[in-house]
Amino acid sequence: MFRTHNCGELRITDAGQEVTISGWIQTIRKFGGITFIDLRDRYGITQLLIDEKLSEDPAIGGLGREYVIQAKGTVQERSNKNPQIATGDIEIAANKVNILNSSLVPPFTIQDETDGGDDIRMKYRFLDLRRNAVKKNLLLRHEVSSATRRYLNGQHFVEVETPFLIKSTPEGARDFVVPSRMNQGEFYALPQSPQTFKQLLMVSGFDRYYQIVKCFRDEDLRADRQPEFTQIDCEMSFVEQEDILQMFEGLIKNIFKEVKNINIPGQVPRITWEDAMWNYGNDKPDTRFEIKLANLKVKGKCFLESIKENEFPVFQNAETILSIAIPDAASYTRKQTDELIDWVKRPQIGMGGLAFIKYNSDNTLKSSFDKFFNEAQLKTIAEKTNAQPGDLILILAGKEERTRKAISDLRLFMAGRLGLRNPEEFKLLWVTDFPLFEYDEENNRWVARHHPFTSPKPEDIETMIQNDPAIKDAEKYLEHPYADIKANAYDMVLNGNEIGGGSIRIYQRELQEKMFAALGINKEEAQQKFGFLLGAFEYGAPPHGGIAFGFDRLCAILGGSESIRDFIAFPKNNSGRDVMINAPSVIDEQQLKELNLTIKEK
Amino acid sequence: MFRTHNCGELRITDAGQEVTISGWIQTIRKFGGITFIDLRDRYGITQLLIDEKLSEDPAIGGLGREYVIQAKGTVQERSNKNPQIATGDIEIAANKVNILNSSLVPPFTIQDETDGGDDIRMKYRFLDLRRNAVKKNLLLRHEVSSATRRYLNGQHFVEVETPFLIKSTPEGARDFVVPSRMNQGEFYALPQSPQTFKQLLMVSGFDRYYQIVKCFRDEDLRADRQPEFTQIDCEMSFVEQEDILQMFEGLIKNIFKEVKNINIPGQVPRITWEDAMWNYGNDKPDTRFEIKLANLKVKGKCFLESIKENEFPVFQNAETILSIAIPDAASYTRKQTDELIDWVKRPQIGMGGLAFIKYNSDNTLKSSFDKFFNEAQLKTIAEKTNAQPGDLILILAGKEERTRKAISDLRLFMAGRLGLRNPEEFKLLWVTDFPLFEYDEENNRWVARHHPFTSPKPEDIETMIQNDPAIKDAEKYLEHPYADIKANAYDMVLNGNEIGGGSIRIYQRELQEKMFAALGINKEEAQQKFGFLLGAFEYGAPPHGGIAFGFDRLCAILGGSESIRDFIAFPKNNSGRDVMINAPSVIDEQQLKELNLTIKEK
Repeated sequence: MFRTHNCGELRITDAGQEVTISGWIQTIRKFGGITFIDLRDRYGITQLLIDEKLSEDPAIGGLGREYVIQAKGTVQERSNKNPQIATGDIEIAANKVNILNSSLVPPFTIQDETDGGDDIRMKYRFLDLRRNAVKKNLLLRHEVSSATRRYLNGQHFVEVETPFLIKSTPEGARDFVVPSRMNQGEFYALPQSPQTFKQLLMVSGFDRYYQIVKCFRDEDLRADRQPEFTQIDCEMSFVEQEDILQMFEGLIKNIFKEVKNINIPGQVPRITWEDAMWNYGNDKPDTRFEIKLANLKVKGKCFLESIKENEFPVFQNAETILSIAIPDAASYTRKQTDELIDWVKRPQIGMGGLAFIKYNSDNTLKSSFDKFFNEAQLKTIAEKTNAQPGDLILILAGKEERTRKAISDLRLFMAGRLGLRNPEEFKLLWVTDFPLFEYDEENNRWVARHHPFTSPKPEDIETMIQNDPAIKDAEKYLEHPYADIKANAYDMVLNGNEIGGGSIRIYQRELQEKMFAALGINKEEAQQKFGFLLGAFEYGAPPHGGIAFGFDRLCAILGGSESIRDFIAFPKNNSGRDVMINAPSVIDEQQLKELNLTIKEK
Repeated sequence: MFRTHNCGELRITDAGQEVTISGWIQTIRKFGGITFIDLRDRYGITQLLIDEKLSEDPAIGGLGREYVIQAKGTVQERSNKNPQIATGDIEIAANKVNILNSSLVPPFTIQDETDGGDDIRMKYRFLDLRRNAVKKNLLLRHEVSSATRRYLNGQHFVEVETPFLIKSTPEGARDFVVPSRMNQGEFYALPQSPQTFKQLLMVSGFDRYYQIVKCFRDEDLRADRQPEFTQIDCEMSFVEQEDILQMFEGLIKNIFKEVKNINIPGQVPRITWEDAMWNYGNDKPDTRFEIKLANLKVKGKCFLESIKENEFPVFQNAETILSIAIPDAASYTRKQTDELIDWVKRPQIGMGGLAFIKYNSDNTLKSSFDKFFNEAQLKTIAEKTNAQPGDLILILAGKEERTRKAISDLRLFMAGRLGLRNPEEFKLLWVTDFPLFEYDEENNRWVARHHPFTSPKPEDIETMIQNDPAIKDAEKYLEHPYADIKANAYDMVLNGNEIGGGSIRIYQRELQEKMFAALGINKEEAQQKFGFLLGAFEYGAPPHGGIAFGFDRLCAILGGSESIRDFIAFPKNNSGRDVMINAPSVIDEQQLKELNLTIKEK
C-alpha cells in the first residue's frame, strides 16, 4: 500500500503519528524557504509542510499541479487552521516525498469553477472527473443505486440480468443492431428496454423483479438524451395499479430519505392525465408552484360569458383561449411585456401574440385589448384565472394543441423568472389514466401511447375487444370507441420531469392479439416478432405490472441539475460520439469481411 | 393486490385466519368428492382443500396443471401434515376460487427432475425457470451479487457505470460491433471488458471502483461459454499486489460466509505459476485433493538415476516423463488399466500410451514395463512419486507441453473417479508470477499473456525497458531476456476453475509504449487505438491495479454446478442463438439502408 491514510481522514487526535499519504498536488505555495502542498484524493485534501532543507531538493522544486506524490511525515497541529475542510486542523510535516508520476499542465483548472469549455472537458473527461463538481455527481449516483437496491431487496425483489443481444422488434426502427458473425446476414438488437424479458420472468413466477440496467436507443439526440441510458426496471405479479403506486412511491421516498435526508410525508398526490392537461397544459406538470391555467375557451366552447359575447376578433376566431395569473407582475413595464410577446412568438413556441391584463394593486384592471373589453369584463377573466390584485394575467389564443403547449411553456418560463423552480425543493406527482391510444393522422390508425403491452383499464377491456379498431371516418376519429379507452398506466413526475412510467400489462393472449391488430401489426408479424410472448401467455401468465425509472434523470434532479450528462461517467455528445476515445470509428476490412458486410459507396 | 399472503408464509399460528393466495397449480388430487390443490409461487407451496360442493363447480373440474388461480378461504390445521415443506402443517379451506389464467399442458413437467430435454427446455425457458432446480440458481445469483456489493461498498468502492458503445481495439478481433446510423461507415464496439475505462477512473482519482457488468466476446463458443457474460470488475489505486490479494480474498470469503454460511479460515494459499505447472501440470490446479505429479524427466533432463541409466526406449526417447500416484488403485484389473490406456489415447488427450506401476499392499511392485525395470528401480519411481503401498502409479512420456497437459487431465479424471472432487467442498488458491509474455511461433513475436496493460514485476521493469523485443533467433527465443520477465499478475482459482484474474497495471507512458512495441503494435496504431490512455498517463496517473471475477462461473461453482448456463436467466446456445426469442434474425431492408450497409451475396 502506498499510504497509511487517505487525504480526508487525519484529525487533530492523530497528532504525533507517523503517516504516509498519497495523492495529487492541488496547490503548491512557497512561503519563505518552506513549501506548502495541498494534497488531494477522492476523500479530501491534506496539507503537507515541507521544511527548508527538503524544499531545497530539486525534485521538490520541480513539482507541479496534478503531480502524483507519496509523502511520509508526522501529523501536527496547524498554526493557521482551515475550518472549511475536515482535515483543516492538521498538517503533515513531511520528511520524505516520492514522486509517483509527473503531470503536464492540465488543459483546464481542476477546480469547482473551471476555466475549461465543454468541448475540452469532454475530450479530457478523465481530468474533468477529478473536479469535485463532477465527482460528487457520480458518488451521488452510487448512493442512489445503493439505496434503490436496499429498498427493493428489502421488498423481496430479485435482480435478474436480462440479455443484451436480443431481437429487433417493430418498435425497433430505433434499435441499435449487432451483426452476427456466426449467423451471417442476421443481427441481434440491443434492448430499448428489457420489457418482454421482465414479463417472461413474471410468467416464470419470479414475482418481483428489478434490474438497474443499460438500455439503448438510436435516436437523433436532443440536447439531453444519450444513446445509452440507465433504467431502474421493475415488475411485479398479482398486483393492481394501487399496489404499484404504493410500492414505488415508497422507493422514491426511501431514496430521498437515505440520499438527501429529506422526508416526503403523506401520499404522493395523484392527478389524471385529463386533469393535468386541463390545469397545466402538460402531462408532467411542475407542481413546485401553484399557478394553474384557466380554460376560457376550449375547442370552440366558451367557458366565460364575457368572452362568448365579445367581438374581439382574436378571441372570436381562436379555437382555444387559455390564461394564467403571474403573481406580483402587474407592474411590468412596456419593455417587459414586449419581451414576453417576443418570447411566445419564437418558433419553438410559435404563437401569433400574447394578450395580457394588469390587475393593479389598486384593484383597477388594464389590458392590451381595452378597445374590446371594459373593466367589468376584464374582471371576469381575472376571476376565472384566480388572479389577485398585483398579478399579471397572460392570455394565449389559438389552436388547441399548440396553445395548450405554449401556455404550459410560458407557465414554466415565468415560474423560472420568479424563482419558483428551486432545485432544492422536490414535488412528486403521479399522473394516471392516460389514453391507451393516440391517433396517427398520417396513417389514419392508432398507435400505442405507452407500448403495446399496456393493458386498458379493466372497465375498458370489453370496449377494446368488442370493437373493430379500423377508423372509417378520419375526420371523426374522436368518436371511435377506442379514442376514449384509458390505459392502466401511470407516470411519476418530479419537479416537472417524468422520472418513471409504467403500466399494468396485458397477460391474456386474446387481448394481446387484439392490441397488436389495433396497432396495425398483422398476425404473421406478431407471431414472428412476439410469438415467444404470445406463447408464454398460454402457459399460465399471472396478472402483472411494472414501472421503469430513468436513472440518469433521477440522479440529475436529486443532484439539483437540469442536465444528465454530468451524472454519467463517460457520456456521448449530441452526435452520439465519445470524443475522448473517438468512437464510433472505422473498423478493419477484415472485420467487415468476417461479418459478410459491405459499406455502400455514397 | 391479488393476495393477502404468498404461498410460502402461512403457518399453524395463522389457523383461523381468512386469507387470499394466488399462484400456479402444481398438482390436483381428487379424494372422494373433495379436491386437493398444491398451489405454487416463488415462495413455496400451500395446499388448498376444496370441499365437495365447490368441487362440483365445472370450473374447478376444468382446472389443470399450471393454471393460475386465486383462492380465498380459511387457514386450518392439516390432518395429514407434510414435514418436508414450511407450510406443511396447514391448508386453506377454500370458499372461492377465481381462475386468473388457464394453461396448456406444459411440454415438460415442472418438477426438480423433469422429463424435458435440453432443447425443449431452452425453447420454453420461461417454463424451465419455474422449476425449483433452475429458479434457485437465479436466487443464489442475486444473493451473490448482493453480498458482493455489500462487501465492496463497505470497503469504499464506488460502482461506476462505464459505456457499452465503445471503440474496437487491436485485441478486438473478437469484438461485437454496432454500426452507427448517425456516423455512417463507422462502428461502435461492445466492450470485452471495461479495462481502459476503469484505468481512466483511477487516473480520475476514483480510488476504488467496481461494477457488476455485462461483457461481450464474439468467439466460437465452447460448451460452456456465452457471447455475453458478467464480470465483477474492480480496480484500486495506490496498491501493490499484496493489497489486492488481501482485499479480494476478503470478498470471496465474505461471499462464502454470507451466501453459503461457510467460513474459509486463514490466508488463501498461494503458488507461483512455475510451481503450479511443475506440481500440477496446470495453472489452475484443483487443490481439493493432494495428488501432485512427479517430474521424472523434463525437457530431456532426468531427475531420477534409475531412468537415466535405463534403456527402455519409450523413456529414452521421451522429452518429458511425468507420473502420479493414485491412492488405493493398485488392485485395478487388466480391464481397468486398459480403459485408462484408451482414455489417454483419445484425440483430446493425444498420448501414445500409458505406463503404470502397481505398488501392491504387500510392498511388491509390478509394472507394465517389467522387461526393462527391476523392482528396486520401480521402487525409486514409486518413491519419487510419493506413492504408498496400495497405490497405482501412472506414467506419461512424450513432448513436454502435451505430456504435462495430459497428466494434469489424467489427474483430474482419476480424482473424479475416486470421488475426490466434491462440489460441496471449496478450495481457493492464488496463482501468481505468470510470465508476462508468451511466444507466438507463427509470427515469431511476443504476445501478452494477460493483456497489454499488465505491468511487469517491479524487478523486471528495467529488463523490459533496456532490451529490444525483437527475437533474432526463433530457435533460441527462450534465451531472449523477455522470456523470463514475470507479470505482476494473479489468478484466483476455485476447485480447479479460474474464477478471477487481474494485475498491477502499467501507469507510465514510457513503459506502456514499450509494451505496445513489444507486442508489435506500432506507434501510429497505439496512438489511434489507445491515444486517450497514453494521454491520460501524462496527467498524473497513480499506481493502480485490479481484478475481474467471472460472475457466471463463480455462481455456478457456488451452486455446485459445472455449467454456467443454468445460472443465466436467458442463455444462448452454442451457436450464439437465443432459441426462445429466435435471435439473431434478419432485419428490415429499411434498417440496413439507414445504416448504409449491404449484406454480401455468397
